[in-house]
Amino acid sequence: MIVEVGLLGCGTVGSGVVELMNRRQGKIADMTGLRPAIKKILVRQVDKPRPVELAPGLVTNQPAEVLEDPSIRIVIETIGGIEPARTYILQAIASGKHVVTANKDLIAVHGAEILDAAERHGVDVFYEAAVGGAIPLIRPLTEQMTANEISDLLGIINGTTNYILTQMTETGADFADALAEAQRLGYAEADPSSDVDGLDAARKLAILASIAFHARVTLDDVQVAGIRSISAQDVRFAEELGCVVKLLATGSDRAGVLSLHVRPALVSKQHPLAHVSGPFNALFVRGDAAGDLMFFGRGAGSLPTASSVVGDVIEVLRVIRLGVSGRVSRMYLPGKRVSPLHAAPARHYLRLTAADKPGVFAAIASIFGVHNVSMETVLQKRAKGNTADIVIVTHATEPGPLANVVEGLRALPQVEAVHNVMPVVEAPE
Amino acid sequence: MIVEVGLLGCGTVGSGVVELMNRRQGKIADMTGLRPAIKKILVRQVDKPRPVELAPGLVTNQPAEVLEDPSIRIVIETIGGIEPARTYILQAIASGKHVVTANKDLIAVHGAEILDAAERHGVDVFYEAAVGGAIPLIRPLTEQMTANEISDLLGIINGTTNYILTQMTETGADFADALAEAQRLGYAEADPSSDVDGLDAARKLAILASIAFHARVTLDDVQVAGIRSISAQDVRFAEELGCVVKLLATGSDRAGVLSLHVRPALVSKQHPLAHVSGPFNALFVRGDAAGDLMFFGRGAGSLPTASSVVGDVIEVLRVIRLGVSGRVSRMYLPGKRVSPLHAAPARHYLRLTAADKPGVFAAIASIFGVHNVSMETVLQKRAKGNTADIVIVTHATEPGPLANVVEGLRALPQVEAVHNVMPVVEAPE
Repeated sequence: MIVEVGLLGCGTVGSGVVELMNRRQGKIADMTGLRPAIKKILVRQVDKPRPVELAPGLVTNQPAEVLEDPSIRIVIETIGGIEPARTYILQAIASGKHVVTANKDLIAVHGAEILDAAERHGVDVFYEAAVGGAIPLIRPLTEQMTANEISDLLGIINGTTNYILTQMTETGADFADALAEAQRLGYAEADPSSDVDGLDAARKLAILASIAFHARVTLDDVQVAGIRSISAQDVRFAEELGCVVKLLATGSDRAGVLSLHVRPALVSKQHPLAHVSGPFNALFVRGDAAGDLMFFGRGAGSLPTASSVVGDVIEVLRVIRLGVSGRVSRMYLPGKRVSPLHAAPARHYLRLTAADKPGVFAAIASIFGVHNVSMETVLQKRAKGNTADIVIVTHATEPGPLANVVEGLRALPQVEAVHNVMPVVEAPE
Repeated sequence: MIVEVGLLGCGTVGSGVVELMNRRQGKIADMTGLRPAIKKILVRQVDKPRPVELAPGLVTNQPAEVLEDPSIRIVIETIGGIEPARTYILQAIASGKHVVTANKDLIAVHGAEILDAAERHGVDVFYEAAVGGAIPLIRPLTEQMTANEISDLLGIINGTTNYILTQMTETGADFADALAEAQRLGYAEADPSSDVDGLDAARKLAILASIAFHARVTLDDVQVAGIRSISAQDVRFAEELGCVVKLLATGSDRAGVLSLHVRPALVSKQHPLAHVSGPFNALFVRGDAAGDLMFFGRGAGSLPTASSVVGDVIEVLRVIRLGVSGRVSRMYLPGKRVSPLHAAPARHYLRLTAADKPGVFAAIASIFGVHNVSMETVLQKRAKGNTADIVIVTHATEPGPLANVVEGLRALPQVEAVHNVMPVVEAPE
């Protein structure tokens, strides 16, 4: 039996979906007894050349030809962004169509609205491709790990910043040069702010944390810092400390109090995340029974993203075949608070520039002493003129005292700047 | 509504299952609307002390009290081994009970028989815990990755050998000492042959390959070599070559021709698998759309294994709740051949001991030349008496010419021994 599918958008992801659906049609029919067929593709410009060959009449610029065609039972959304994707998806749901989307922006901000609408209308919405590209994350968290209380998420979930930081580590380049190279190669956009300022990762973290911690987490709950301040010096110092600099998305749940951050961190080379380079993504998940698990793979790209989209389409078909559409349960246990101050004690890296003269280090050390934060490692290097670059790694410290130390250091006349403060992530035991 | 559960065995895994089921009972009821309750536990000795506290009357040594109790709807098998586990499971299935098992030996050898019986009787059998302990592997391969044709599996799926090889790498110990230490710590059994000779990994590979490649693969289809021959020298030479020695389970599907191996290999330190140490397991999967994915986590242990077992129990409950028991599809596309000779060209490491005198190296090199295998790197070291240890890394070569080279080298009077021949695994691009 043929199941008609409508596709919204035919860019990088959309054309990958068309190609993969064509490639897998026979196998999908063997597996599910249902043969998906793309009936209509909504695009802005009908006559634009595409990376995949499309039968004439397949594309349209009229949303109604997809959304109001009662024969279309599944709508795949690959437009991205909030509008018009949100309106189209809600309209599809209201018409009783199942939805598969790769849209992280939309799910991060309007996920609850969309899932509630799906529940009311008895249809399914799947969004595996919204986070981590090809990597199965949403369904392992929703299904296979449900025997666990998940306490921690730790991930590299933005490929652009990971590519830039990998380049900085491998070539010694500074941030601006590595960004320019990433833009030249198409790994970073002309306006790179959503990636390099951490917002893209924060959206994905909001989605993952909602599922892992059974809470309704939105973008505003995530504390975000990007990688613009990371310099070639930080990368070199990290190397000396046996670490690499990564933009980490971290979430923790301590007895229902959540803490959510996207920020650069030093990751020990003994930690598997340190070896996630270039365009790859990875997510560490800690469960009370499973212990540490990691999921790794391509975080973006046409076919990798299509892998998750078409995987979701197959799940929709299985669910149709079983006759249980709209009953595949979602669960939120409400009532968890999101607190930005709660964080486990961690070692921290601080890099500062100070006057290179006698007594300065004593003044710096006394600030640490006053706030009862103890120093584990000190590196002093590459003095320029009358200044010295100083890196201090603390023993495990709470965020409160650490913030006081930073404030105290910034108030010291001998300290020119405190450049970067980053947690240091150890290998799992 | 309460769903009665019977447990077979209460050892390391079984007692973890009891503990985790108790911990999660409320959450499972919230999620599925069904509350699982362990009604009876089959053990050999009723009065033996256990790691978990059990209500009086919960344990029995009479199989019938679990298998013939019509109120028990789910049977969890944690006994391990072929018999009596196989008989008990088939009996449970015939009585219309769903089965969750952690038994790799049984699934690797009798998986088809058990799944066929389940299909006939309209019940579900899940076995996520049989491979990779806590790591979700079976269901991601069966469900989330179905949009892919999977071409390659590459995994570290035996914790004992990984612990031993990690110790050899970190301490420079020889195999015998590292094994003795692993036995002292309980990571290796008194008779370690199933682990160190690669059979345990081969069983797991047979299970994974059956699912990933849609074929009925059994243990006999896997070419197996263990790690007894790996010496401290091999580990040191690997280090010089930027690699670590790992026991790898590899499977490939080239147009329906399968190749399945368990054998030691050199893994580039740039490859994420190189950093899977100690008791951790990891599986790399290559799909035509997703590209490379890796799944990482604890491969054994009481609660990690229970995480997968109880995750399967929750899936059985979801399926009961949805009213689709026995209809969750399994798919085998028959007709794939298993060929031990098919293997992609790969760089190979050879270590040999030869007489340390003029002309020997020319003789060795000529063997390579005759068979058209080219050498990429040569290391000659640590001569003892009149002999030299020689390591040769080839350029990418097919298995046929390589076997001819090894045969030719062994026939040379100047060559005392060819110790180890291992493929070299590069980092994914």
